[in-house]
Amino acid sequence: MSSSKHYAKGSPKPVLPEDGILRLYSMRFCPYAQRAHLVLNAKNVPYHTVNINLTEKPEWLVDFSPLLKVPALQLVEEKDQPSLIESLIISEYLDDKYPENPLLPKDPLKRAQDKILLERFSGITNAFVKILLEGTGLEDYWVALDIFEKELTKRGTAFFGGDKPGFVDYMIWPWFERLSVIEYRLPEEYNFDEKRFPKISKWIADLKADSVVKSFIATPEQHNEFWRTRKAGNPNYDLLA
Amino acid sequence: MSSSKHYAKGSPKPVLPEDGILRLYSMRFCPYAQRAHLVLNAKNVPYHTVNINLTEKPEWLVDFSPLLKVPALQLVEEKDQPSLIESLIISEYLDDKYPENPLLPKDPLKRAQDKILLERFSGITNAFVKILLEGTGLEDYWVALDIFEKELTKRGTAFFGGDKPGFVDYMIWPWFERLSVIEYRLPEEYNFDEKRFPKISKWIADLKADSVVKSFIATPEQHNEFWRTRKAGNPNYDLLA
Repeated sequence: MSSSKHYAKGSPKPVLPEDGILRLYSMRFCPYAQRAHLVLNAKNVPYHTVNINLTEKPEWLVDFSPLLKVPALQLVEEKDQPSLIESLIISEYLDDKYPENPLLPKDPLKRAQDKILLERFSGITNAFVKILLEGTGLEDYWVALDIFEKELTKRGTAFFGGDKPGFVDYMIWPWFERLSVIEYRLPEEYNFDEKRFPKISKWIADLKADSVVKSFIATPEQHNEFWRTRKAGNPNYDLLA
Repeated sequence: MSSSKHYAKGSPKPVLPEDGILRLYSMRFCPYAQRAHLVLNAKNVPYHTVNINLTEKPEWLVDFSPLLKVPALQLVEEKDQPSLIESLIISEYLDDKYPENPLLPKDPLKRAQDKILLERFSGITNAFVKILLEGTGLEDYWVALDIFEKELTKRGTAFFGGDKPGFVDYMIWPWFERLSVIEYRLPEEYNFDEKRFPKISKWIADLKADSVVKSFIATPEQHNEFWRTRKAGNPNYDLLA
């Protein structure tokens, strides 16, 4: 899957057509930005992608993302063309705004329970970063994953969203697509225990076959290569460009 | 304003009437728990308060709050009597569930913008904790507050919610009620600059007069005394009991 080149420091501001189409400021290998891509694709909402080099950020990024983070979503059809930031807020906005393929439950309790689950997902994201940067914390990762195995068992459905992927599924998927990077980082310790995580194992296989997930995916080899270059201090943002 | 005593380690589980009324696990001086009190009071939803000693937590807290935090809201009328955690999730749940006095805008964009503002409020909460614990970071606090002064100016209304307090107002108020604690902690450096923050100054005065805020308030002296005992390693949770 190809992607457009990443704008870096000194890059001129991209000139996009005044076509009223949403603009997503992204980075091809950012799991948070991937959340927004998945929701946009799940809802068949057209958008322009503006990829950003997060090491050497273009000067004009601040105009769209005050904290210089991705994803940021610019709503060019709205008054003053405001931008939204924070992947979960962007994703919920898109789900509220575009009714096709609703992702979050409408019931206030179920909605709140899904959001609590996403809060608890920080156990996974924190462990993931620690493993990548410090090479430790694998057991913390598995302990955090137990919560999701247990929850999927409790829900009794193939996906957190029910019979098809919903909000929680797409919000957490990017980290599972990157399991290979943990294995690459800790080849001697890594052991995905399918007996400990039978539901999650099946869930991963099912999501890999999902058309939305397939619409924005990278291979284990590509993720590993990106991580290798990032760890070496020179991330190859344009690996897929 | 009085409050019930805080349950500590070894306390028997409280016996509450099976009256179908919500149960809020709280701590009288916790700003996050205060958010839930304010929303419940804004909507005139009856609830039982179960105050928790956060230094010596009762053993049964885990049954209602898996991460042992407050606030937690137990929904005794729902199947299996589930509990919700995280102050913003609890507050949004209550707003979705109880239509009286709606707090968050219904428009997806305005809703998202309010949530982004609350994300950025972490600049204030982080600076607040740092000031209290380390005695530094006052300038960071003011810089974070600039964002809110600017936003209130941009909105052109007395409150973030418009002509009356809304979701953002009640979510951030607890930290402004505690400004006295910063002054108490840094008496020589603290200087609330009304010229730098004219809108916020007026907003603070307006909120102090709001009936919902007045329904769950503590005086500067009470906050300072709680902070004094907390800093001394022996928080007086029952100061108002």
